[in-house]
Amino acid sequence: MTRVKLLVCLLCLIIGTTMVFDVSAKQKKKDVRNSWITVKEPARPAGQSDVLALRCDPIPTVRIAFIGLGMRGPGAVSRMTHVPGVEIVALCDVLQENTQKANNMLEKRGFPKAQEFYGDTSVWRQVTALPNVDLIYVATDWISHARIGVQAMKDGKHVAIEVPAAMSLDEIWALINTSEQTRKHCMQLENCVYDFFELTTLNMVQQGLLGEVIHGEGAYIHGLQPFWNQYWNNWRMDFNEKHRGDVYPTHGLGPVCQAMNIHRGDRLNFLVSIDTKPIGNPAFVKEKTGREVENFRNGDHTSTLIGTEKGKSILIEHNVTSPRPYSRMYQLTGTKGFANAYPISGYALDAGEIDPAIAANHENLTAHSFVPDGVKKALMEKYKHPIVKDIEEKAKQVGGHGGMDFIMDYRLIYCLQRGLPLDMDVYDLAEWCCLIPLTEISLDNGSAPVQIPDFTRGGWNKLSSLQFYQN
Amino acid sequence: MTRVKLLVCLLCLIIGTTMVFDVSAKQKKKDVRNSWITVKEPARPAGQSDVLALRCDPIPTVRIAFIGLGMRGPGAVSRMTHVPGVEIVALCDVLQENTQKANNMLEKRGFPKAQEFYGDTSVWRQVTALPNVDLIYVATDWISHARIGVQAMKDGKHVAIEVPAAMSLDEIWALINTSEQTRKHCMQLENCVYDFFELTTLNMVQQGLLGEVIHGEGAYIHGLQPFWNQYWNNWRMDFNEKHRGDVYPTHGLGPVCQAMNIHRGDRLNFLVSIDTKPIGNPAFVKEKTGREVENFRNGDHTSTLIGTEKGKSILIEHNVTSPRPYSRMYQLTGTKGFANAYPISGYALDAGEIDPAIAANHENLTAHSFVPDGVKKALMEKYKHPIVKDIEEKAKQVGGHGGMDFIMDYRLIYCLQRGLPLDMDVYDLAEWCCLIPLTEISLDNGSAPVQIPDFTRGGWNKLSSLQFYQN
Repeated sequence: MTRVKLLVCLLCLIIGTTMVFDVSAKQKKKDVRNSWITVKEPARPAGQSDVLALRCDPIPTVRIAFIGLGMRGPGAVSRMTHVPGVEIVALCDVLQENTQKANNMLEKRGFPKAQEFYGDTSVWRQVTALPNVDLIYVATDWISHARIGVQAMKDGKHVAIEVPAAMSLDEIWALINTSEQTRKHCMQLENCVYDFFELTTLNMVQQGLLGEVIHGEGAYIHGLQPFWNQYWNNWRMDFNEKHRGDVYPTHGLGPVCQAMNIHRGDRLNFLVSIDTKPIGNPAFVKEKTGREVENFRNGDHTSTLIGTEKGKSILIEHNVTSPRPYSRMYQLTGTKGFANAYPISGYALDAGEIDPAIAANHENLTAHSFVPDGVKKALMEKYKHPIVKDIEEKAKQVGGHGGMDFIMDYRLIYCLQRGLPLDMDVYDLAEWCCLIPLTEISLDNGSAPVQIPDFTRGGWNKLSSLQFYQN
Repeated sequence: MTRVKLLVCLLCLIIGTTMVFDVSAKQKKKDVRNSWITVKEPARPAGQSDVLALRCDPIPTVRIAFIGLGMRGPGAVSRMTHVPGVEIVALCDVLQENTQKANNMLEKRGFPKAQEFYGDTSVWRQVTALPNVDLIYVATDWISHARIGVQAMKDGKHVAIEVPAAMSLDEIWALINTSEQTRKHCMQLENCVYDFFELTTLNMVQQGLLGEVIHGEGAYIHGLQPFWNQYWNNWRMDFNEKHRGDVYPTHGLGPVCQAMNIHRGDRLNFLVSIDTKPIGNPAFVKEKTGREVENFRNGDHTSTLIGTEKGKSILIEHNVTSPRPYSRMYQLTGTKGFANAYPISGYALDAGEIDPAIAANHENLTAHSFVPDGVKKALMEKYKHPIVKDIEEKAKQVGGHGGMDFIMDYRLIYCLQRGLPLDMDVYDLAEWCCLIPLTEISLDNGSAPVQIPDFTRGGWNKLSSLQFYQN
């Protein structure tokens, strides 16, 4: 070893490892970002531009092919039969029984049978290549989502992909680059942003009722014990066994990012993550299969804090094993009001923010208590989101998590038919999915902060707010 | 500049600043603690040992002197008149009207008048020096807590100090060293660990009902607008103006640490903290005083994640300005059960964990819902904490945050009278207060992880669990 190398190693030990603070000494000013781990942010390839507010040619009748008919797929096929102006032209799954079941359901609903594709894990390539398809709707296992999505766009289709649509940074950038190159929509099927409470609250936020939203919380807390055996080939537990981090962040993060105008005036800047040791999931595997899992990667409970460019914060939690009531948390703290969805939903508002017509009989309103039920009901009626008004009853009737799944599908088709930008773009997909790889990096580095790439590559401040286009 | 210095600077730039990850490359194994900021952990001075489970001579009648009679003090004096076996011998405050008021109250309660000390901010030195006092009860402003506490012990008294008892690491180590040297009790007056729900839940945890508690949450979320003008000399807002971080963490952290046996088999290892920009507090100052505050330090909302030695996690939040319902969060996630206090209190338990006598009429109990009200009530009755049983009615009658303040005072005197270890020791104080300086360091360094000192200096694994001694 040369002397120089030796010196480098020595200095690494001194400088690069532990910083010891003399707490009585004044802290020196420095750029705090210097302590963040960064990941590669590939430059935008030449000849391609962003797809912010992307408009495509209107498609009066949207021809859909479904890939993945195990768990989430069949419900989606069923819901789409209730959306006006669609044709379901292809059904694809590894298992023939799944394509058959979906086709039988189409027949019962009075729809023409769709072409079936099945047999192996590469048959989907025939589907993305079909000439008579406008939209590929992907509900396969997590690890095939992005691959299918990229190919669908390359084959000239718009694509909608179940959550999480991408599991790694490479997959995220591939979806972004392909959407930018092909000018095709790439939407993540994040249904929770369409839940009635979240949509109503978003509308309140956009009307200014909560003031400036400075902190948001979201989660996926759902004991999956009744479901683990339903995932084809055990893909979901396998992913948890191999990956540490928040592997399912989009339900919690999506609605909060929308309320905070992420990449529409603000951006996610960095995250730090912490987890507990793994107990529940490896114990479940052991109980069901007898296999002693060594080195199960994912902890039982993962908590992630995110800072934004504009000085706001987000907390996201993940837990799919502990005995807890279901919770997506969904909480917004604003300078003038507060919204909370779990375990009870409610609002607290500065008295001055409440319409006197609503608050007239509630003299003692204070921002430090939830508004009474009557006020909450009146507020939710008044601030019902415009996109819900016409389809609320139908959504509840068609169902899918109480109607939010139908609203999602309805909106996707509505916007495609009219050539409007979709409610969620590929950058939303990127931001909401990036927690999967980035929390893993933070956790593997002692909860060090990790910088979050600007997936718009300079465009995060171009749009001023989230819009649900209606014409 | 010498060549060596130049080389050092160059290497600092390369190594000490930004780490760039090639995400496609495999992460290398390393000691994750190397990325943590550490603070000085002073060695234990020679001739002094820890005060874990410290027992002192019984004091059949406890003679108390109160220092600080502005906000929390008068209530404490009043409550102590309901505790058997105490004498209140001295009352001290900067303002004579406060000592007089407290003395009048003593008289009304049929107690002999106490000696009064008032006039300036150093008069308390006469009180700690009094020969006829066993216990100094400190309820002054935050920044004088530790100074008075140290002097009280040096003057041969036990001391109980309002929260937070210490605001800096220097103050924390001074209290620890003085307690270890003088063998006097130094207890922080953390009342929230005595709230009925928290105490009952702690008992459930200690009986194993929740399994292993792997994640805990706590907070102080309380809009203080009605109170800001009541703090003598504006000390509380001033502290927030000058300090960034969770400046009031003990109400949230205390009950969670007790449920997790911190320094009784586990220890706090490191923390990371994130905050929002400051809006509410500087706006309040501007509104009330007309003063435009530049560089207000503390953000509106601060979130802190803590990792423990045994692979558990804790979330602590602080917000004293946003329009939100009061919340200390208090939530425990165990491997067999779950407890949650805000905004509604409840339990979720593995069905097998519930006494059949309690669950008999609830066939459909599932760990994924809160237990029904009847089951919750029966559980809370069955697991009522032993220290509460005899004094519950009296506590509710005497009051102080619904009775928990009385239980705290009662237990303090009860243990002193019998020479028992107190429920909370100086290491609890240190652990719960250290978030104040350590979150500030994390925040000023881009949310970098900060190692938490072992305040027991090697003793965190000596005791096996928290005990509330009764004889």
